Amino acid sequence: MGQVFTVDFTGAHILSIEQFQREDIEKLFRTADRMEPYAQRRRVTRVLEGAILGNMFFEASTRTRISFGSAFNLLGGEVRESVGAESSSLVKGESLRDTARVLSGYSDVICMRHPVAGSVAEFASASRVPVINGGDGSNEHPSQALLDLYTIERELQGRQRKIDGLRIAMIGDLKHGRTVHSLSKLLCQYRNIKVMLVSPAELAMPDEYVSALREAGHQVHVTDRLEESIANVDIVYSTRIQEERFQDRQQADLYRGRFRLNQAIYTRHCEPNTVIMHPLPRDSRAEANELDADLDSNPNLAIFRQTDNGLIVRMALFALILDVAHLVDQHARDVFWFNPRIGSH
Amino acid sequence: MGQVFTVDFTGAHILSIEQFQREDIEKLFRTADRMEPYAQRRRVTRVLEGAILGNMFFEASTRTRISFGSAFNLLGGEVRESVGAESSSLVKGESLRDTARVLSGYSDVICMRHPVAGSVAEFASASRVPVINGGDGSNEHPSQALLDLYTIERELQGRQRKIDGLRIAMIGDLKHGRTVHSLSKLLCQYRNIKVMLVSPAELAMPDEYVSALREAGHQVHVTDRLEESIANVDIVYSTRIQEERFQDRQQADLYRGRFRLNQAIYTRHCEPNTVIMHPLPRDSRAEANELDADLDSNPNLAIFRQTDNGLIVRMALFALILDVAHLVDQHARDVFWFNPRIGSH
Amino acid sequence: MGQVFTVDFTGAHILSIEQFQREDIEKLFRTADRMEPYAQRRRVTRVLEGAILGNMFFEASTRTRISFGSAFNLLGGEVRESVGAESSSLVKGESLRDTARVLSGYSDVICMRHPVAGSVAEFASASRVPVINGGDGSNEHPSQALLDLYTIERELQGRQRKIDGLRIAMIGDLKHGRTVHSLSKLLCQYRNIKVMLVSPAELAMPDEYVSALREAGHQVHVTDRLEESIANVDIVYSTRIQEERFQDRQQADLYRGRFRLNQAIYTRHCEPNTVIMHPLPRDSRAEANELDADLDSNPNLAIFRQTDNGLIVRMALFALILDVAHLVDQHARDVFWFNPRIGSH
Repeated sequence: MGQVFTVDFTGAHILSIEQFQREDIEKLFRTADRMEPYAQRRRVTRVLEGAILGNMFFEASTRTRISFGSAFNLLGGEVRESVGAESSSLVKGESLRDTARVLSGYSDVICMRHPVAGSVAEFASASRVPVINGGDGSNEHPSQALLDLYTIERELQGRQRKIDGLRIAMIGDLKHGRTVHSLSKLLCQYRNIKVMLVSPAELAMPDEYVSALREAGHQVHVTDRLEESIANVDIVYSTRIQEERFQDRQQADLYRGRFRLNQAIYTRHCEPNTVIMHPLPRDSRAEANELDADLDSNPNLAIFRQTDNGLIVRMALFALILDVAHLVDQHARDVFWFNPRIGSH
Repeated sequence: MGQVFTVDFTGAHILSIEQFQREDIEKLFRTADRMEPYAQRRRVTRVLEGAILGNMFFEASTRTRISFGSAFNLLGGEVRESVGAESSSLVKGESLRDTARVLSGYSDVICMRHPVAGSVAEFASASRVPVINGGDGSNEHPSQALLDLYTIERELQGRQRKIDGLRIAMIGDLKHGRTVHSLSKLLCQYRNIKVMLVSPAELAMPDEYVSALREAGHQVHVTDRLEESIANVDIVYSTRIQEERFQDRQQADLYRGRFRLNQAIYTRHCEPNTVIMHPLPRDSRAEANELDADLDSNPNLAIFRQTDNGLIVRMALFALILDVAHLVDQHARDVFWFNPRIGSH
Repeated sequence: MGQVFTVDFTGAHILSIEQFQREDIEKLFRTADRMEPYAQRRRVTRVLEGAILGNMFFEASTRTRISFGSAFNLLGGEVRESVGAESSSLVKGESLRDTARVLSGYSDVICMRHPVAGSVAEFASASRVPVINGGDGSNEHPSQALLDLYTIERELQGRQRKIDGLRIAMIGDLKHGRTVHSLSKLLCQYRNIKVMLVSPAELAMPDEYVSALREAGHQVHVTDRLEESIANVDIVYSTRIQEERFQDRQQADLYRGRFRLNQAIYTRHCEPNTVIMHPLPRDSRAEANELDADLDSNPNLAIFRQTDNGLIVRMALFALILDVAHLVDQHARDVFWFNPRIGSH
């Protein structure tokens, strides 16, 4: 599962959230905080000028790929990429370890996505440079779980609250949702959390995650009733029915649209300022529509702040692995161009 | 249709040529002039060092994509890209507006091509950064029309002439040709133009464009006879039969090769130094061959100057949108490497 | 076949190894030596900052594409890319020469791979910037042959030997293997070489290469017996059965796995420190397994040093073509980030 940090990330692979102890998470998040001016183009840093990211996506994922690539660019580095089924050498009988030995000669760090669970760890074991898991099938996608937790922390900050003591409802396809599994694991590092698990019985959170949460001393409620579950929480974490992971895709039709949140339901049931999250993409088709478009003007809808946080969490991962976090500001300068985020230069 | 400039482009989306008033065009073209030393690698500028272009091609188009990407690189910026049908999130039911909100967090400006008319404007409406339309189906492709007009202006300059007073023949598939539609619209901003529209009756220029030209006070002749039409013009603008836009592709065979220009016809019918243009790709197959290869040694063949002009017009668009046009020269320096365009360093 | 250098590469196309005389090879290799600190991230150079490589892969090849792209990045330049069957303009009837004229306006140098033999030379003839052949079907792939020869030279150095006097065994599919053909041609530039050609009779080295080696005064032995052939050589160059080049793919099954090397065979038959090479990918499937994984801990297995050498040979090609080889060190500076290759900064 890769090495454990606590608390030096230099040269490490990032393969699983299980590598992260609470102090590792803390270090990562405080580093992420310092990346924000660069992600928002208030400042430019060139600390990684000359470095190369090998962005190896053996399975397509536009937004994750571009998020990693942009994060590296924002630190001043270059990106070389591979997308999708182009992996012809694997077809010719090359082992994943050989591929790793070759590709790791071309870059300073690799981000890899691959459809097969465990493949990224195998690749990393032969790589000569650090490897970040950008998703290996239904197994792990650690940067997604970390950006979710970072978002929770930031959203709670404005409310004078912390992750310890969090009240969260996870809703939807809790069986197939890799993000809710990983987030649950991360929450086991914290204290005194209330978790509402809302799904159809057939798509319930697997036992191992429920048990782990309970062993961590957390309060866990399993239910299929939406309205009650969202009544007394800080975070509503909605998810999509992952039809692509169903053996029989038509079966997904039975569940899609089962748990819908819109502004009327939110107003009626939620506490004021309850935060709404979603790992995206949200399914906006009429038959699904788990988060209605009428929530888009609700300032507590944090779903696009999540993806923005993904950028800075990934910048922080790169900065820590390559041990330049302390140098980022030294290589910084002003931005010359128009910044639409702040409406000026 | 996007906002109207007149004449500040800062932070604007570039969605349609209808946004461009004559003074906007003038500003764009004078900015383009100043980009030429950089496009020709006589100088290097780093003014956008640290900026990121999101080059989102949801429909493949190698040359347009690379032209935009290179233009951004030539200003010192980085490019993150997506090509073709990789847009998996859209398949999972994500709205174009959600995609825009997410992707616009990763870059400073976006260039987007998409097969569906109107999609780029919809995307732009939710984007947090400026969006340039790189072609939305049969609708708009504004930078192509602008580079065509810029080429016309430059080619006429050597002949002591201006766009006002232009005489131009547009030839071929005027029904499906997006470029001749857009160019016609742009010409409505100018005075005293003669337009020969040469096509089979079935592929005639749609009425709305003909009417607009006439309402602008221009002289318009509709014909299907090539030789007469090219006799007294400054510009011959040839186009390809756009078979991919025919409902029945076999029907395209009826028209392909109908209007062919070669050196013999040119010599016999055209005034000396009549300029030959084409939006490219030209169809060089024997059955089409709208511009014969024997024209390649004719110095008035401007088709590759057109694509070169595309690069500098796109540089100018980026420089104006991001408000760095006045800073380009300040961040410039010499080129160290061999420049094949000028045969030396 | 492209121009002959001897010995100025400035502005030249690199289309075929036939362009390389011995003094050209020598200059290239000595330039490559000087690229190593940059490939190993001990130093960063920005000499090509502002330059653009057009990395045009009209046939997919992840590792070659990324090797060229990374090489250009390591010199400070930017990379614009095209991958695979996206070449829509060719589908619309555009000639390769038109494509070359257009694309060469967007970059300072082009690397091109294309499935059709001769296509890269045709492209280069119309390009306005230097073109490097990254593989044109079964024809040429000069940088691969050069990195192989460079590897041979470096590996022999540690043994106080030179390419003159080399003893080498080439093993496997010598009929379809483009790399062994090209390497044979290059070896004709050297003196007093012993070549063991080991293959099934049906996959023998074509006569033209055997004749050329003999005319160069080399000693050539053609055989199908592995053990004897590897007994008294400096280099064992193993290759994969190129099933994709067989007319009848099932026929490839007859030969796959015929010549296997593992540690036991190596120990029993080879001289101490015999170097093992392979153009990669090696076929690690049980039925093939031409180089067993138990060789991975053998320090004489040079197959990953080969790919690392590919990076620096390609850097050298770019530096020489663009005439910046003498400037690389002037634009160099320290590396700020963690370097896993040397375990520190």
